[in-house]
Amino acid sequence: MVDLFGGNPGIPLASALDSDGTVQLLDTTLRDGEQAPGISLDPDEKAEIARELDRSGIEFIEAGSACTGEGERETIRQVTGLDLDATVTSFARGVKSDIELAVDCGVDGVTIVVPASDQHIETKVGSTRSEVVTTTAELVEYAKDHDLWVEVIGEDGSRADIEFLERLMREALDAGADRSCYADTVGHANPETTYEYVSRLAALGPVSTHTHDDLGLAMTNVWVSLAAGADLVHGTVNGIGERAGNVALEEVAIALAHGYDIETATLDQLYSLAQTVSQATNIPLPPNKAVIGENAFTHESGIHTDGTLKDKTMYEPYSPSSVGRERRLVLGKHAGRAGVQAALDEHRIDVSEDEVTAIVDRVKELGDRDKRVTDADLLTIAEEVQGRERDRHVELLDLTAASGGGTPTASIRLRVGENERVASGTGSGPVDAAVEAVRAALGTDADAQLDSYHVDAITGGTDAVVTVEVEMSRGDRTVSVATSDSDITRCSVEAMVEALDRLLSVDTSGTSSNSESDVDVDADDVSLADD
Amino acid sequence: MVDLFGGNPGIPLASALDSDGTVQLLDTTLRDGEQAPGISLDPDEKAEIARELDRSGIEFIEAGSACTGEGERETIRQVTGLDLDATVTSFARGVKSDIELAVDCGVDGVTIVVPASDQHIETKVGSTRSEVVTTTAELVEYAKDHDLWVEVIGEDGSRADIEFLERLMREALDAGADRSCYADTVGHANPETTYEYVSRLAALGPVSTHTHDDLGLAMTNVWVSLAAGADLVHGTVNGIGERAGNVALEEVAIALAHGYDIETATLDQLYSLAQTVSQATNIPLPPNKAVIGENAFTHESGIHTDGTLKDKTMYEPYSPSSVGRERRLVLGKHAGRAGVQAALDEHRIDVSEDEVTAIVDRVKELGDRDKRVTDADLLTIAEEVQGRERDRHVELLDLTAASGGGTPTASIRLRVGENERVASGTGSGPVDAAVEAVRAALGTDADAQLDSYHVDAITGGTDAVVTVEVEMSRGDRTVSVATSDSDITRCSVEAMVEALDRLLSVDTSGTSSNSESDVDVDADDVSLADD
Repeated sequence: MVDLFGGNPGIPLASALDSDGTVQLLDTTLRDGEQAPGISLDPDEKAEIARELDRSGIEFIEAGSACTGEGERETIRQVTGLDLDATVTSFARGVKSDIELAVDCGVDGVTIVVPASDQHIETKVGSTRSEVVTTTAELVEYAKDHDLWVEVIGEDGSRADIEFLERLMREALDAGADRSCYADTVGHANPETTYEYVSRLAALGPVSTHTHDDLGLAMTNVWVSLAAGADLVHGTVNGIGERAGNVALEEVAIALAHGYDIETATLDQLYSLAQTVSQATNIPLPPNKAVIGENAFTHESGIHTDGTLKDKTMYEPYSPSSVGRERRLVLGKHAGRAGVQAALDEHRIDVSEDEVTAIVDRVKELGDRDKRVTDADLLTIAEEVQGRERDRHVELLDLTAASGGGTPTASIRLRVGENERVASGTGSGPVDAAVEAVRAALGTDADAQLDSYHVDAITGGTDAVVTVEVEMSRGDRTVSVATSDSDITRCSVEAMVEALDRLLSVDTSGTSSNSESDVDVDADDVSLADD
Repeated sequence: MVDLFGGNPGIPLASALDSDGTVQLLDTTLRDGEQAPGISLDPDEKAEIARELDRSGIEFIEAGSACTGEGERETIRQVTGLDLDATVTSFARGVKSDIELAVDCGVDGVTIVVPASDQHIETKVGSTRSEVVTTTAELVEYAKDHDLWVEVIGEDGSRADIEFLERLMREALDAGADRSCYADTVGHANPETTYEYVSRLAALGPVSTHTHDDLGLAMTNVWVSLAAGADLVHGTVNGIGERAGNVALEEVAIALAHGYDIETATLDQLYSLAQTVSQATNIPLPPNKAVIGENAFTHESGIHTDGTLKDKTMYEPYSPSSVGRERRLVLGKHAGRAGVQAALDEHRIDVSEDEVTAIVDRVKELGDRDKRVTDADLLTIAEEVQGRERDRHVELLDLTAASGGGTPTASIRLRVGENERVASGTGSGPVDAAVEAVRAALGTDADAQLDSYHVDAITGGTDAVVTVEVEMSRGDRTVSVATSDSDITRCSVEAMVEALDRLLSVDTSGTSSNSESDVDVDADDVSLADD
């Protein structure tokens, strides 16, 4: 047996929770998150994220690091100017000028970071333990004289001599600091170390915990920190931050809410917050990430889809809507009868038992060939199995796009109903020009909106197959289509024409409007309310 | 204080580790991982991943779920045919035919999944507790008669009545099962519950743990499972899997190695494995993920870069090379003097103190404007600050690309040295055609390789700005360039021409070869060994 946590079978891990326990969150997306390579948030982006954090009930917002430069100070002022409920802080190194710059930005508090490990004290800063203690006490007094909330972070605390860390924090608290912060700056600590260090700091006064995920232990270390007496958790939205990132704020919030009824944030705001941060930082949401990932509430496999259709909680610990999300059932290689039947029902397609069997086989076959099985695929398979002919309303006959030098341009020939339409367009690139040409060709029929246009990242060679996903709407109907081709222009136009065909065909087929269903079938691909 | 883990200050969380502790890993990338929406691995992909898992020393490989279909059985046979050191298993539901199908595939073992919670027993399967126990014992005997290694997984075990789970697993072990598996199938469990359940199962015999990350607690639950006596951990490469995914195998491996000297995998193979899985599944590696993320060993901020240049371990818990990676220092809004100086040294550019100051200011200014600061940017800034004129060797004069209908084609006009070159090309799309034209125009000068071509995902509209990154090499020199434009064709060609210019200019400038440095400056952007 592995002797973790002492391996003592008598460890009293109880599920009982002290109901007086409260936990607060300090969001450092705008500081530690922004320090991640390639991220730079402008004042408006910081303000928007700060507003959303405040709306989500986050108690502390670290808005940035005032010493970084005038541009950064401008962004911090933008946040302090919002008059939020949250306590807005700036990061400050252990020098007076950093605190002065923070004060200039109008913050409510500072997180003063001072070196705690000998490696950071001696090699990085070229100082001594005593000097660090003295300076820290002076800086705390200076900051308190300016009416700031003060937290002292012992940088690299998890690699510090615990006796020294205690001495440093005792002096800081004596000098008036509101709390100390245990920082696993380099993401190095075992839970055992974290528990011991935080316990000893908690004995001195209020203590926060700041963890990094280099060992995948950011959450584990938060958990043992809380068990050891910490009551303020530093984290970032989506877990962005230096290197492997910080602990993800939304995970701390959902895990405390789900397992312990401890409220630290307004859960149903979390997804909107995640999207805002993802857009501002250009870091896509990882598909398998808790709470925020595209797949977090998506079921494909037959067993899971079948179970979920019988009881929504069969394969979900908490409801998607509790964190502002929706459930999705998608089809693929692991599809089963129940999932396929549900998708066909969604599209109001009546099929016999034998037909379902044949459709399931074809869906799995397509999935086996490493293909996404979109709703467009399902509809086509159903048409073929049932021997129905699809009557296309809009068809792409011809496309030419030219670009590279001057103004990108494209021409298009479409069949719309009985008519052929030809038009041209210009745009910022060949795809944009082609889309303009499609719009021009459709004229007044083109009362459909292109709601979103997405191309998967292209990796490999210049001849790689590109996947384009478009979502278009017309009135209250929405349709999404995914297409793949090695020519991005043709691929984009084909997706758009397919979507337009599904949207405009409705006029001629006259089927009635489909009511909203709780089980959304693959919003990523064709999810056509009317067809 | 929050009463986690019982909140007892006497919890003996010791850092001591029983040196007899061994932990093994069961990789379920090919089964639970593949169940994630949109993933389908073909036989060759599964075989390649299995080979790499074996090479990484993973002891158990769950190759798939034999009941899924003939296509899936073909992929499992491909894996069992490799004659790996690892024990290769198939997932099997609690029905005899599933085990027969697994036997047909030639596996060494089966993981038999049977419902454990009443919700799964009654609502999903429509069975009873007694029936499940009886059937499980029969299936275990049947599998053991076929000389299989047998693990029984109690599905939704974390929501099961623990008394029943004990009864089920006791009967399974009595019937000959090699081990039981605690499964937090829906990612619902607190560490407290996990500890209690695993402890009670461990008292019966060998026990594995299977955790999901819906609450962000997958690793935490692995840790308390190990503390409670589990000695086999189920996980997936990159943490892919149902919903929020499984625990990431590479995180379990590095955390046990770093903190406890427990070896579960060949660490320096992990990154290669991660890349193979990412490519096969089309799921990009999240930039902030431990071990595998692009940013895991990248430093941008001034404080971190400065510290890292003084001592490599200043901001890293373990060396990048230990997991098959390299360290990178990049420039951006948070850049400091030390990082800029190091980057300039890397490119053998001599600058005065005042020039460094001016260059740092310009770098931060560019970073503030939400821009990536590539090495190309740094070189340009240095040229401007020092008043040097850059002598371009290759220049793009004219580009036309046409596509959409028939064969995509492009023409190009380049200046190469004193000469003008015109050529055309065809390809699978406009970008590919343009690249062919560039190759044709350069003729024998084009002895440079296009090593990689990457386009960031495009989200927004068809007029969104696209970012293209190319990496090219010539002999032992490599250059990477990032460019942005709303015309993907022009953007791609500009990146390529810029890279070619840097590669071909070397011949004329005659600078000497740069020795390899441990500090790689932004391999993502221009990282030119010779310039």
